Amino acid sequence: MSTTISNSAQSWVSVDKGSDFPIQNLPFGIFKYGEKPPRVGVAIGDKIVDLLQLYSLGYLNNLSFSKTDFANMYLNDMMSHGKEACRGLRLRIYELLNKDNNELQSNANHVNNILVNQSDATMLLPVQVGDYTDFYSSREHATNVGTMFRDPDNALLPNWLHIPVGYHGRASSIILSGEPVRRPKGQQKPNEDEPPVFGPCKLLDFELEMAFVTFNGKPLGESISTKEADDYIFGMCLFNDWSARDIQKWEYVPLGPFLAKNFASSISPWIVTLDALDQFRIPGPTQEPKVLPYLEYEGNKHIDIKLEVGLTPEGGEENIISKSNYKHMYWNMNQQLAHHTVNGCNIKCGDMMASGTISGPNPENYGSMLELSWKGTKPLKLKDGSERKFLQDGDTVVMRGYCQKDDIRVGFGQVSTKILPAN
Amino acid sequence: MSTTISNSAQSWVSVDKGSDFPIQNLPFGIFKYGEKPPRVGVAIGDKIVDLLQLYSLGYLNNLSFSKTDFANMYLNDMMSHGKEACRGLRLRIYELLNKDNNELQSNANHVNNILVNQSDATMLLPVQVGDYTDFYSSREHATNVGTMFRDPDNALLPNWLHIPVGYHGRASSIILSGEPVRRPKGQQKPNEDEPPVFGPCKLLDFELEMAFVTFNGKPLGESISTKEADDYIFGMCLFNDWSARDIQKWEYVPLGPFLAKNFASSISPWIVTLDALDQFRIPGPTQEPKVLPYLEYEGNKHIDIKLEVGLTPEGGEENIISKSNYKHMYWNMNQQLAHHTVNGCNIKCGDMMASGTISGPNPENYGSMLELSWKGTKPLKLKDGSERKFLQDGDTVVMRGYCQKDDIRVGFGQVSTKILPAN
Repeated sequence: MSTTISNSAQSWVSVDKGSDFPIQNLPFGIFKYGEKPPRVGVAIGDKIVDLLQLYSLGYLNNLSFSKTDFANMYLNDMMSHGKEACRGLRLRIYELLNKDNNELQSNANHVNNILVNQSDATMLLPVQVGDYTDFYSSREHATNVGTMFRDPDNALLPNWLHIPVGYHGRASSIILSGEPVRRPKGQQKPNEDEPPVFGPCKLLDFELEMAFVTFNGKPLGESISTKEADDYIFGMCLFNDWSARDIQKWEYVPLGPFLAKNFASSISPWIVTLDALDQFRIPGPTQEPKVLPYLEYEGNKHIDIKLEVGLTPEGGEENIISKSNYKHMYWNMNQQLAHHTVNGCNIKCGDMMASGTISGPNPENYGSMLELSWKGTKPLKLKDGSERKFLQDGDTVVMRGYCQKDDIRVGFGQVSTKILPAN
Repeated sequence: MSTTISNSAQSWVSVDKGSDFPIQNLPFGIFKYGEKPPRVGVAIGDKIVDLLQLYSLGYLNNLSFSKTDFANMYLNDMMSHGKEACRGLRLRIYELLNKDNNELQSNANHVNNILVNQSDATMLLPVQVGDYTDFYSSREHATNVGTMFRDPDNALLPNWLHIPVGYHGRASSIILSGEPVRRPKGQQKPNEDEPPVFGPCKLLDFELEMAFVTFNGKPLGESISTKEADDYIFGMCLFNDWSARDIQKWEYVPLGPFLAKNFASSISPWIVTLDALDQFRIPGPTQEPKVLPYLEYEGNKHIDIKLEVGLTPEGGEENIISKSNYKHMYWNMNQQLAHHTVNGCNIKCGDMMASGTISGPNPENYGSMLELSWKGTKPLKLKDGSERKFLQDGDTVVMRGYCQKDDIRVGFGQVSTKILPAN
């Protein structure tokens, strides 16, 4: 068995040009269809490969997985087998879907049992997230926020170029694309000289992020180096870090964001493996001042992932309000994971770590309404003639992402979320 | 069946005067002994009631629990039955242990199977913690920190008297009493004008806290009121929120503590139910300025829990370095939980929420080395003649807590942790 999927490979399952899910991708997710219980699936074109069926029909023999790894509400049990086993599983699926392989494609009855239309399936949250960490790794985003709220001449705080700054977030409120988000209520202090008030958030915002999902790490007290980090990362998804700016402003000093963030975070349903993203790796920015040795890394650890955000008012049409790229990150995943564990903090299978808002150098690359409307001073004009400083009830926010090189496109699908009014 | 345990009740299991675990307590934990797999237990005197055996012998029939609730590595499955069911279970155990009840005590063979010596058992982490939140609810602690690091004349930040300030912590590194903690390494910036350095933490500290464990909450988007909060709290334990002050100082602006805290938090093994603590409830402080309506509460929601911290140098004898009380909290658990969910944030069975450092009004009540040594300016003198500004390798920190009224003592046991040198 080869260890990578060739760019010239094609599947006997038809894949439209422009699909996010060619045979070079093969992302993992959890789905259900008909009356059947949840199970693990792999996307190919507009189909899903039912891994429970594949296993039950004997196609995954000689791998280390068992039936309950696939007859499962989450990917965690499958992922608990680790990097090499999951890589082997994906390559076996590639083999079975390869046009040049007759094992499965020649058995029409089996094919019928194993392939499910994505349109007939309901996707579920793919991972039971243990701990969720949010980083703050886009220099442009940190600079924009610092410019708006602190000092334009010293926009970056002193630690920012030395530390991949991050904080712990709430795992219980991570939800799937398609689930609406209710506008949160909370304390705000609109007037400096008056007491705080309680009510629905008035400055509701999205944050365009990507997240990675981890395998089991090392025992408590040990660290993962930047070099080892790839072995502990299963894959990535799109991540919308919903933010209530008015709640955040009043609560966040000195211990960081809390209720401004923990009402919801939305993710896309397919976890694209790090292996599928490997060919889209690129060099990162020069890091000056030089980082401490535990944050040094070798090779290309940034990834060229094209990102966009669409905003659709209730009953209206979509407006693309941001175009960014994951390559703009200052700190890469390897550095984030090395930093997170350098003090001995342990990570577990199914932990999720988000990038922080991914903003690029130009205003059209900004990854939040806060930045796009520059704190509400430059409202966005939408196609229907309305304006937005922040998000309104009934708005739907969609984030999409994909990698592209020559004819090969490896995509993430989307995370789409409608905003409901406060209770 | 009565709904509370009478203070005049006594058990046929002998309980020493001064024991933390009389029949009025009956806390839950996870233990193993001999070659047997982990299971749920309830402490009584210096014994443990093996709930799996109790169930298997038919003593827990007519309750809603099943065998796997007790044959379990964690209390979560048992707790997932909710407040009323867990209350019924505890009262049934009380009934069986009551001196006036012959059901169990008259069957010597069963008694022999069901009672295990605590000295023969190994306690395990009682709860699989989903999300962990740390509050900052002691006015004295927040004032001390503000006085030391900011402005003595404005020690409390503007939001502190309006918000039970809290932040998300790391669940994966919550460990049990008895497990050592390794001194973390990380970035520090000892000199203002020089770049940060990397190395072992030099200012390692404990924080004396208590934590509560939750039942399943409401769906995402709904809130728990201060009045409802009791129904969502299973019980409490002692909590040591290990802190690396030098790492914290450099990393925590603007998103809060991260590596300074997430290398470990230590808890005591027994979860004392809220029911057992009910008779020790007392009024809280007057809250001025008046809190927002969602934070108002009725009745006595604070609890009189006497706390102490012991420090034992390697090979030396114990020094009691702090005596505090949970009653010093400004914000109570009901307010903390109402605040945490007011934005619709969901809580799950097994979430853990810690109080924040519990300091009292006098220097001997301070709940951290930072405060006890006043930022290192007033070293503590120990019995062996040595001094401590912060913790040293080989030191063991023990926290103990108990409630006492007349002859009734309901205690938490202890959380004891030795500090190992950095790797």
